[in-house]
Amino acid sequence: MLLVVLDLTGIAVFATSGALAGVRARLDTFGVVVLGITTALGGGIIRDVLLGIHPPSTLRDWRYLLVPVVTSLVVFWLHPQFARLRRGVLLADAVGLGLFTVTGTTTALAHDVPSYTACLIGMTTGIGGGALRDVLIREIPMVLRKEIYALAALAGGAVVVLGARLGFPAAPTAVVGAALIVTIRLIALWRRWNAPVARGMST
Amino acid sequence: MLLVVLDLTGIAVFATSGALAGVRARLDTFGVVVLGITTALGGGIIRDVLLGIHPPSTLRDWRYLLVPVVTSLVVFWLHPQFARLRRGVLLADAVGLGLFTVTGTTTALAHDVPSYTACLIGMTTGIGGGALRDVLIREIPMVLRKEIYALAALAGGAVVVLGARLGFPAAPTAVVGAALIVTIRLIALWRRWNAPVARGMST
Amino acid sequence: MLLVVLDLTGIAVFATSGALAGVRARLDTFGVVVLGITTALGGGIIRDVLLGIHPPSTLRDWRYLLVPVVTSLVVFWLHPQFARLRRGVLLADAVGLGLFTVTGTTTALAHDVPSYTACLIGMTTGIGGGALRDVLIREIPMVLRKEIYALAALAGGAVVVLGARLGFPAAPTAVVGAALIVTIRLIALWRRWNAPVARGMST
Repeated sequence: MLLVVLDLTGIAVFATSGALAGVRARLDTFGVVVLGITTALGGGIIRDVLLGIHPPSTLRDWRYLLVPVVTSLVVFWLHPQFARLRRGVLLADAVGLGLFTVTGTTTALAHDVPSYTACLIGMTTGIGGGALRDVLIREIPMVLRKEIYALAALAGGAVVVLGARLGFPAAPTAVVGAALIVTIRLIALWRRWNAPVARGMST
Repeated sequence: MLLVVLDLTGIAVFATSGALAGVRARLDTFGVVVLGITTALGGGIIRDVLLGIHPPSTLRDWRYLLVPVVTSLVVFWLHPQFARLRRGVLLADAVGLGLFTVTGTTTALAHDVPSYTACLIGMTTGIGGGALRDVLIREIPMVLRKEIYALAALAGGAVVVLGARLGFPAAPTAVVGAALIVTIRLIALWRRWNAPVARGMST
Repeated sequence: MLLVVLDLTGIAVFATSGALAGVRARLDTFGVVVLGITTALGGGIIRDVLLGIHPPSTLRDWRYLLVPVVTSLVVFWLHPQFARLRRGVLLADAVGLGLFTVTGTTTALAHDVPSYTACLIGMTTGIGGGALRDVLIREIPMVLRKEIYALAALAGGAVVVLGARLGFPAAPTAVVGAALIVTIRLIALWRRWNAPVARGMST
């Protein structure tokens, strides 16, 4: 139950980041919605393919499509002025990374994979949708450009795995893991935005 | 049987769209053939991975390789003057989208997935090859730029699913579904080509 | 055993090509490492997904992560002057193509797929990581730009399959297949570098 809520929340925020990126790339309504859906569902589909879940659970439950469609349309209609789009993409991406890494790791553990594999699959789940989004609009994926992106996901996944192995209840562990990832990413973003001198090729 | 014919026809037209796109991107013979193959087989491989068909059926039947190789070579040798290449890519892509969405949906139904899932997997099959083609030559995929692309595929897939659920014979339903998708796409292309004023960022 | 050695060697050289490409694309340390890992593990993960090996073996053995991380860090610290980077990417890519095609083909044969399928899966394994690398840094993949790239992989895979079907011992066959691929690629590169006049769009 908690997993579904976290999953749907992650889908909504990743859809937001995808739709904002689509608006930035000047796509039309349909393009924005398709990019929102792809960003939102990409990570979960990659996760299910890696775990051998056929067909991917994301393609079996209509809520998993409804949420990103509605989110993307709302973003398209209400999107903020252009200058703030990039920041919005980054913030939504940070939250989505946290939520998806945690649900990816938890799903992997539920399929009895080793701890190490669960961490990697969780990380891939968190990174996948955003990487697809960036490749589709011809940007170099964030995970290659942001200092502490993959590592943040790995840290959060490790928290979830450790909690599960120590027998902690799943819900608070998941929340702590996701919060850790979001916090690391937000600090990294905040530090950059407040850096006295912009580095030449950053972002 | 009909499925194989539709599949091979779809492979030929998608290979045509990939090879024409490769000529436009100024690839050499080998590059054009590889792009033709990737465009032609990409959607089917994605479909089989999502459905858990291992190894993908496309990789087990030599006709599925022979058709795109021959098609791409013919396109390379006979390709029209440069100005018409883009239109050729779009036309071939429209027909391929129709055929692949229908075979993808039918294959998914044959693997006993729910109606909803079959529509989505059919749409992904139709969209996948063209998206790969565009990403590989660094263009923003058509599905993000064309107003009625994903929706056309979804409509055609819905026709196939509805026909199957109502017990209609598969062959005419498949033809109607494919024709619907191709018609929607061609009308969209025709309207754009005949639009009095080109929108700034279209295409 | 030989398979693991060839696999880890292939991972190290593909990580080298990915890390060098990352340095060329001016990524920071983390980006270089992530690109090195993706290039090194991409082909094997695609192979396992196509063969239905869940979760991919690459994600179950920590050595498969340690090798590309260390390799990428070493490349980042010691990378040669910029002018030589492109040549380094190409050389490492040639060796990686040879090793991965052979291990991919061998793994496919071990999963009882037909000869034809084994060749194609081997080729995909060899090509996959490099294609991912190039797409992620927004270059047109080598397989589309180099004359004898996919064909070299196919030839090497055919040697491995033929050797296996004729009952030859696996180790020497693998070495011969890999050597064939690397030789073909190196001759192609050497011929281009020594060509009297550069063709306009060759890279």
